[in-house]
Amino acid sequence: MALSIDQIQAPVKDDLEAFEKKFRQSMKTNVSLLDHIMTYIVKRKGKQIRPLFVFLTARTCGSITEATYRGAALIELLHTATLVHDDVVDDANYRRGFFSINALWKNKVAVLVGDYLLSRGLLLSINNNDFELLRIVSNAVKEMSEGELLQMEKARDLDITEEVYFEIIRQKTASLLSSCCAVGASSANCDTTTIETARLFGEKVGLAFQIKDDLFDYSNDEIGKPTGLDLKEKKMTLPLIYALSKAGWMEKRKIINIVRNQSEDARKRAVVIKFVEDAGGIAYATEIMKKIEREAYGMLDSFPESIYKQSLVELVKFTIERRK
Amino acid sequence: MALSIDQIQAPVKDDLEAFEKKFRQSMKTNVSLLDHIMTYIVKRKGKQIRPLFVFLTARTCGSITEATYRGAALIELLHTATLVHDDVVDDANYRRGFFSINALWKNKVAVLVGDYLLSRGLLLSINNNDFELLRIVSNAVKEMSEGELLQMEKARDLDITEEVYFEIIRQKTASLLSSCCAVGASSANCDTTTIETARLFGEKVGLAFQIKDDLFDYSNDEIGKPTGLDLKEKKMTLPLIYALSKAGWMEKRKIINIVRNQSEDARKRAVVIKFVEDAGGIAYATEIMKKIEREAYGMLDSFPESIYKQSLVELVKFTIERRK
Repeated sequence: MALSIDQIQAPVKDDLEAFEKKFRQSMKTNVSLLDHIMTYIVKRKGKQIRPLFVFLTARTCGSITEATYRGAALIELLHTATLVHDDVVDDANYRRGFFSINALWKNKVAVLVGDYLLSRGLLLSINNNDFELLRIVSNAVKEMSEGELLQMEKARDLDITEEVYFEIIRQKTASLLSSCCAVGASSANCDTTTIETARLFGEKVGLAFQIKDDLFDYSNDEIGKPTGLDLKEKKMTLPLIYALSKAGWMEKRKIINIVRNQSEDARKRAVVIKFVEDAGGIAYATEIMKKIEREAYGMLDSFPESIYKQSLVELVKFTIERRK
Repeated sequence: MALSIDQIQAPVKDDLEAFEKKFRQSMKTNVSLLDHIMTYIVKRKGKQIRPLFVFLTARTCGSITEATYRGAALIELLHTATLVHDDVVDDANYRRGFFSINALWKNKVAVLVGDYLLSRGLLLSINNNDFELLRIVSNAVKEMSEGELLQMEKARDLDITEEVYFEIIRQKTASLLSSCCAVGASSANCDTTTIETARLFGEKVGLAFQIKDDLFDYSNDEIGKPTGLDLKEKKMTLPLIYALSKAGWMEKRKIINIVRNQSEDARKRAVVIKFVEDAGGIAYATEIMKKIEREAYGMLDSFPESIYKQSLVELVKFTIERRK
């Protein structure tokens, strides 16, 4: 039976609490508007999935150091910065049931707060000489923005191959989790090979997570209805890419035409969703996702058995098999 | 007679050209949308004021190293990132006569490109172990966003003192020029005292520059008409802050009421502008600006005379006494 998030957190519960406390402290400022927003950001935080990956990886590979706390804080500051920026990007008015920073304080503040958080995170690392952590995390920022831009570029052309799809999701999604795991291993003073194994483990988890997320667009066991939202935004994901690769010339043209010109129309989207299902796109993407998930577990083979490693495996299950 | 920008650039012309070339190379990417935007950004670049401060300071304090190029590139990437983000922040549709990134590709791309540029700059420094440069520049990012947010907060209250005004412009504007000069001195391998002197020099230039900029809102010799744009956005700057501090209770209430409730009305703004002039706000701010400018030149006393130092003095004059 799958464990709850509380059960998964248990082995690093004390670490997470100590981290939370330090993180809140590191967010203090002397601009009251900023303090206001910070309190608000801390309140709406979720299940701490990212710090959990950092701490569990550190303990699976070795032990937790002061750098582990700073690494987790750097990633949280970075992640919060990108969430705040995403509010601008997505024009999202809600996030996790609260009003988004964007809706409350407008784009102006959102961009400034994002920049501010990023610089706070950077200074925290620089002042502690955590240069390896900085390198890992700066690279994640670069890949995340590059991946989003690549996806936008490809959404315009609709000429996306499976290879490009994997490049997009590796950069856009997997780079954050892979950096969590690399930061965990690096902060535990592991050797280069171990850090690389941890990084690859995180990358595979991130890839499987994103494929699962993309599958919701075409099939949704829980709600019973596919969401079709990516399709509306002309995002070409694995189930559709596979289905198109199997289609004849005429059918391909018809489907591409719907995506290009009629993606606002829910009935037209239903035609695409049925096409994907019939062509085996859902089955194919599910199979690939499971394969990558198995590869992720395989990356952990070189680490000794421990309660931390067990929790890490459960955390992967929780992350990938979550319901929306 | 004041020198032209070409004459000021002359002593570091070769340095600037070599820098330009390296900078363009460092901007290459493999996402074609991004390359498109990059070419566009490089095209619309201005008078290279920031690299000029970096190179002239480095040569005034010592000599140019490879780190000087990377430092100037880091600042340019950072500055471009904040310009791109500012396009979101200001809702500006034009910038320097070209369409802004924002208008052409929308907020979404603007935020992503800003984040991307920032991370490219960071990686460039991290991969070269330029940690002192990183510290200087990350601190500038923090101060710039903090200063903008502080200004927005104070714009709501309208309870701004001269002290808070100086804190805002030190963070918001002066931190970029002070970091240019500190980066220049640091990259020339100067000692801590020299770096701090260079930093303070840049800070004073930045402060005087911003006061000059704020003065345009109330008096404009060139165009003949004050712009009043800051006032429209309820920004309280030095001429107004001084004038209010000299006003009686009744008059103060009247002026504050116009700023708070009627700043959209050009005729009402003209009332405030006349009040500021009559109360000696323009004369006062001009005097303070000149005093800070003299202090800036004073910071250079400890450096040996050279063509670089002469150019640096001319650059300060050019920067502060420029016309819009």
